[in-house]
Amino acid sequence: MSYKTIVRSLRTLSYVGSYKKIRSRPYKFYYAAIVGTGFIAYTQLKNNKAEMKEIMQLKNYMAEPITPLAQLEQNPDDMKTQMELLIMRIQAEFCRALEKEEDQAWEDEKTADDYDFDKDLFLPSPESKFKVDRWTRKEGGGGITCVLQDGRVFEKAGVNISVVSGTLPPAAVQQMRSRGKNLQSSELPFFAAGVSAVIHPRNPMVPTVHFNYRYFEVRDKDGVQWWFGGGTDLTPYYLNEDDAIHFHLTLKDACDAHDPTYYPKFKKWCDDYFTIPHRGERRGIGGIFFDDIDFPSKEKVFEFITSCAESVVPSYIPIVQKHKDDAYGYHERQWQLLRRGRYVEFNLVYDRGTKFGLHTPEARYESILMSLPLNAKWEYMHEPKQNSPEEKLMRVLKEPRDWLNIEKGKRTVG
Amino acid sequence: MSYKTIVRSLRTLSYVGSYKKIRSRPYKFYYAAIVGTGFIAYTQLKNNKAEMKEIMQLKNYMAEPITPLAQLEQNPDDMKTQMELLIMRIQAEFCRALEKEEDQAWEDEKTADDYDFDKDLFLPSPESKFKVDRWTRKEGGGGITCVLQDGRVFEKAGVNISVVSGTLPPAAVQQMRSRGKNLQSSELPFFAAGVSAVIHPRNPMVPTVHFNYRYFEVRDKDGVQWWFGGGTDLTPYYLNEDDAIHFHLTLKDACDAHDPTYYPKFKKWCDDYFTIPHRGERRGIGGIFFDDIDFPSKEKVFEFITSCAESVVPSYIPIVQKHKDDAYGYHERQWQLLRRGRYVEFNLVYDRGTKFGLHTPEARYESILMSLPLNAKWEYMHEPKQNSPEEKLMRVLKEPRDWLNIEKGKRTVG
Repeated sequence: MSYKTIVRSLRTLSYVGSYKKIRSRPYKFYYAAIVGTGFIAYTQLKNNKAEMKEIMQLKNYMAEPITPLAQLEQNPDDMKTQMELLIMRIQAEFCRALEKEEDQAWEDEKTADDYDFDKDLFLPSPESKFKVDRWTRKEGGGGITCVLQDGRVFEKAGVNISVVSGTLPPAAVQQMRSRGKNLQSSELPFFAAGVSAVIHPRNPMVPTVHFNYRYFEVRDKDGVQWWFGGGTDLTPYYLNEDDAIHFHLTLKDACDAHDPTYYPKFKKWCDDYFTIPHRGERRGIGGIFFDDIDFPSKEKVFEFITSCAESVVPSYIPIVQKHKDDAYGYHERQWQLLRRGRYVEFNLVYDRGTKFGLHTPEARYESILMSLPLNAKWEYMHEPKQNSPEEKLMRVLKEPRDWLNIEKGKRTVG
Repeated sequence: MSYKTIVRSLRTLSYVGSYKKIRSRPYKFYYAAIVGTGFIAYTQLKNNKAEMKEIMQLKNYMAEPITPLAQLEQNPDDMKTQMELLIMRIQAEFCRALEKEEDQAWEDEKTADDYDFDKDLFLPSPESKFKVDRWTRKEGGGGITCVLQDGRVFEKAGVNISVVSGTLPPAAVQQMRSRGKNLQSSELPFFAAGVSAVIHPRNPMVPTVHFNYRYFEVRDKDGVQWWFGGGTDLTPYYLNEDDAIHFHLTLKDACDAHDPTYYPKFKKWCDDYFTIPHRGERRGIGGIFFDDIDFPSKEKVFEFITSCAESVVPSYIPIVQKHKDDAYGYHERQWQLLRRGRYVEFNLVYDRGTKFGLHTPEARYESILMSLPLNAKWEYMHEPKQNSPEEKLMRVLKEPRDWLNIEKGKRTVG
């Protein structure tokens, strides 16, 4: 067992432990106590391993896990357990990182009443908190949907996990077969767990980010088939090349730790997938995307997607911090809204997950559609001016760039 | 030949004639001369048959027909010609009716410079005019797309005609087969002509309207198969029952003149078609919708869809006039934007025409997507307040109403 794996297990177990301890406390108290400290704990964890366990007690998930705690504790080595705990942790860490950015934008409204003298810090502003919906599904499982809407930094931020099981409808089996899966029956028991998020910031200089990491099991008559899928991709409104390189480099580092062939392969897959064919353009400047990964082993792929999921905060949050107070005007806002219209086009017309979700009976459509922006715009025949910053972005969307000069065999940064 | 048919032919021929006469004049002059008089001519036409031919000289299409004039004149009895001329006329009449409403909203800005002393009237405001794009298609045919965007009365109004021919891609043949068409080959020569429009007004008290009337021919080895399809439907943001009854009654009258079974059948078809299944609601309060109509005869169906297309102006324009200056505030605008988000959801996820169009290579996506609103909004978990006007609308969207008490065997109005 590698050092990383030990750290992860400790982290995960203490999550479950701390949840159980405070489950009996009034909800509000527990919530207020953890939110402010989550990100600090995350950062300190990296700096101070000795205090790790104690610090962990202060952190927690956004809500109670979907699978009963006793069941999770009984099957700690089952990939279903490991995946559920991973996505719970990733959701919480990402939400708290976003809440911290949002909270700073409300600092000027804080008064002495908002000061916690015991902890010697300001309480987070209620406006900076995610709304948390824990939902269950008739057929089996459920999810936790966290949405922060109409904020100062984030116009709409949605971070969702789902842990579902049941019987795959024939259409889904058909779709999987068309991707090369060898599935015999037409109705099969399945398990799926995943985390997905789309963050639409207010400031047009801050890009939208999307990520999704998921694990799938299907039980056929010959046994269980499993695979992982996922990716992280960035959708800027104005192109900042340094940001693009930072983003891609962070993802590349996460990939390289597992297989040096991953980044180039998954970067291309991402450019191919997030395409709006009728416009001949990509949704954004890409990132990584992959599906049906079932080699070299369940544990190895899990470690890989753990690295990817853990790279979301360092790939994105620095870009938010850098640009969230950038100046912009009416013109930039209008362009952002138009590009958000393109985002809606991709998600509703082409995205496999969205289409699959909306055509699944009893699906929780609010969790599927949380990816849509708060506001979007469609102008007939809009064309950016020649040599404008808008046209500069369009050039990259029409012809994806090799940000890290992988093809040329050299790496300019890092 | 019925009286109606004679009137239509005269009307249509004079359209072509007047176009040819002024084709050589400078474009701007021709445009200015006809726009202001189009609707007046239309109205007078109904009142004063004797002057009809003269008045018609002043009217015109939005642009030159797609099929060369000589070819149209050589085949006046061909349904392809009749349909192209019908949709050209319907487009022009509808656009001018909308321009007239828009122009009135600019009246306060007109000065003596805008007065035409020869004609003794104010020139229409340039802001009230449709932008006209005549486009052609590599494989055959083309279209005329008219869009009025960001107006005072109309936030976005798109009126499109297309006259296209070529070879049906296998996917399209497959889709037609799934609707019961008996087509042998997988790649077939086809002809399609249609008019479609979506009008999104600025004021939330004015509903959005959509209509589409189309004619299709496919040449299989056994000969030519043909059919008509279409419909008109209304999407209010606030329910006004009188408007709903007026709208449905106008459509019913158009239907009843041809077959008393049409309205009830096509009203139900409309409610079933314009459904957003994942939300369990209709897009609007319906109207009529039908497809694959190939009986009792080509001429009879053409007369029927002519009546339907001619009923658009009287079904909708009075509602615009009645509500375009209604008072509304921030709250009503936000609700309108949310409902426009639902409109986008229906069009991009479910509408057969949009999906088919976007997946057709070389399709003119700007003409397909002109149906999308200028602005739309998605809020997570939005719920209208109990007993609010918004909830009153939702009740009708969740359970379509029998506006004219057809089922009860009595008609309350008209």
